[in-house]
Amino acid sequence: MTVQNGVFEIQNFRMQSGATLPVARISYRTHGLLNAEKSNAILFPCFLGGVPEALEIWIGEGRPLDPSKYFIILPGQFGIAPSSSPSNTPAPYDGASFPQSTIADDVIAQEQMLREVFGVAELQLVLGWSVGALQTYEWAVRFPDAVKRMASIAGAAKPSDWTKLWLKSVIEEPLTTDPFWANGHYADGASLQAGKRQIGHLAALTLPPKAFYKMGEEVWRNLGFSSVPDFVARFWEAFWLPYDPNDLVLQARKAWAADPARGGDIRKAQAGIKARVMVAAFTGDAMFPPEEGALDAAATPGSLFRHLEGSSGHLATFSLSETDRTNIDSVLAEILGA
Amino acid sequence: MTVQNGVFEIQNFRMQSGATLPVARISYRTHGLLNAEKSNAILFPCFLGGVPEALEIWIGEGRPLDPSKYFIILPGQFGIAPSSSPSNTPAPYDGASFPQSTIADDVIAQEQMLREVFGVAELQLVLGWSVGALQTYEWAVRFPDAVKRMASIAGAAKPSDWTKLWLKSVIEEPLTTDPFWANGHYADGASLQAGKRQIGHLAALTLPPKAFYKMGEEVWRNLGFSSVPDFVARFWEAFWLPYDPNDLVLQARKAWAADPARGGDIRKAQAGIKARVMVAAFTGDAMFPPEEGALDAAATPGSLFRHLEGSSGHLATFSLSETDRTNIDSVLAEILGA
Repeated sequence: MTVQNGVFEIQNFRMQSGATLPVARISYRTHGLLNAEKSNAILFPCFLGGVPEALEIWIGEGRPLDPSKYFIILPGQFGIAPSSSPSNTPAPYDGASFPQSTIADDVIAQEQMLREVFGVAELQLVLGWSVGALQTYEWAVRFPDAVKRMASIAGAAKPSDWTKLWLKSVIEEPLTTDPFWANGHYADGASLQAGKRQIGHLAALTLPPKAFYKMGEEVWRNLGFSSVPDFVARFWEAFWLPYDPNDLVLQARKAWAADPARGGDIRKAQAGIKARVMVAAFTGDAMFPPEEGALDAAATPGSLFRHLEGSSGHLATFSLSETDRTNIDSVLAEILGA
Repeated sequence: MTVQNGVFEIQNFRMQSGATLPVARISYRTHGLLNAEKSNAILFPCFLGGVPEALEIWIGEGRPLDPSKYFIILPGQFGIAPSSSPSNTPAPYDGASFPQSTIADDVIAQEQMLREVFGVAELQLVLGWSVGALQTYEWAVRFPDAVKRMASIAGAAKPSDWTKLWLKSVIEEPLTTDPFWANGHYADGASLQAGKRQIGHLAALTLPPKAFYKMGEEVWRNLGFSSVPDFVARFWEAFWLPYDPNDLVLQARKAWAADPARGGDIRKAQAGIKARVMVAAFTGDAMFPPEEGALDAAATPGSLFRHLEGSSGHLATFSLSETDRTNIDSVLAEILGA
């Protein structure tokens, strides 16, 4: 299938914080072809620490995200290279001095990219998982006429108190208290080994549902790991180690502050969504418990709520089991058919 | 009521690691009076980071732990001053050079203290919560004839994989990666502010059941806090800040390695327990889920299992609500009557 990669540049991009990036870059990767009417586009923003390629497990002919039918755009976000990030921006906005960005900045830049690169003004679907789902709400609230359908998978309109505590204590603090942090002006991001590995340990502790570690269940065994320390090292440490610490801190702070209501009442902001909405939540997801997903759905007109049973919890997006695949494909088929 | 405090000294105490402490100290605090037959003693060891005084909320006339009826001993443990700890031991075993101790060391020293200070050879009940419960299993396996009854409350025979990951990533690593750690040879334990506060944040994230932070429930409100950051600072940071970092690391490693079977089959070790056993577990306790408590009970002859409903989860021992009090008093009354 046709896969394209690109980086969209915006000159003098004014961020929500008031800072102006002389050149802002947002990457994209696309599957399939845009039709002549430009009416078959789907946008699939990424999660925290996720590169667009990580989402490709959900794309396939004959599946809901069918590249022979849809033009599927996987946009980048600020804080993950090659999109503008602390690690790849020149002075004075390099490293720790990169302006704090928001999820609104991501969405504004993505929208401009869609129009100027592809001439797309309307999306059949915006879908996302976790921090990607925070982006879908920002999209549907900020650009209600551009989003026909929206799917929030293991996500929320706005991070909960628990999620905020998670972002600070699991992602930000292990880095900002690392002995080599130097207020973010470290010589070499790879030297923050302790902090990055600690993120891995804490993510391993807090993200998998309890069945992962339960005597007799030990779901990590099904994934080919030989012990819990092996699972922690090869799955969790390996995931975080490649990233630049300032880039991760930027992403964590961006998610922490996510607020489509811009300080107002989030439920009122949701009420302005025009898209058909699917809210999907997973059994055992400590980050976005199904009961909270149900509240999000109840506050969003034209929404469906699906509680998906399985043993992967928040990790279902990694398609760890056949159940995950079936579950998510079924809600995507449902919302695309709506 | 009669309250006594003391510190028991053992000369040349040989630890399980092979090291010999020239003087080992185990503190104790008692409520009530020992009867002439020395047959009314109850031992109540403490949790990780807990001082014996913290358990006194469970003692009261007319309640199961009735000091007018029982002689209730709250023993110290290695790693919490004034018991022998990295922070109060002279060279060469000072600070980071304190020998790694085990829960077996605690129990061996406590048993000697009971015999030599009080002449007590048999306990009506050994009860404990969390790491205190790890001590009760060590007691019942190591000294089966000395323990008539045992109660493990929100505990386990041995830490699970999840609990081990918790001890390493929530307690040990925030300290050992603190910029002022210096391999444990820091000049001043109070300088490890980042690490100790991070423990507070991560404990706040991982120990309360989800209802604490759930929209609409927010159990922290009932406890008199004004916001989540207020709860995190005044409850969680305040709890950990007073402690010496090496003392905390010692306690975490001791709990991590807890194993009444000494490397053998834990279920076989449990089968040798002669005490009547109560295993109590709380809804929403991520550390010691009720399903795992039920497995512990099933492996222990003469045991009762009680799944206690409530909104405090692992924190029920702090007696945060009337339900906690009623729940725990009821299981203590039941085991004392057995």
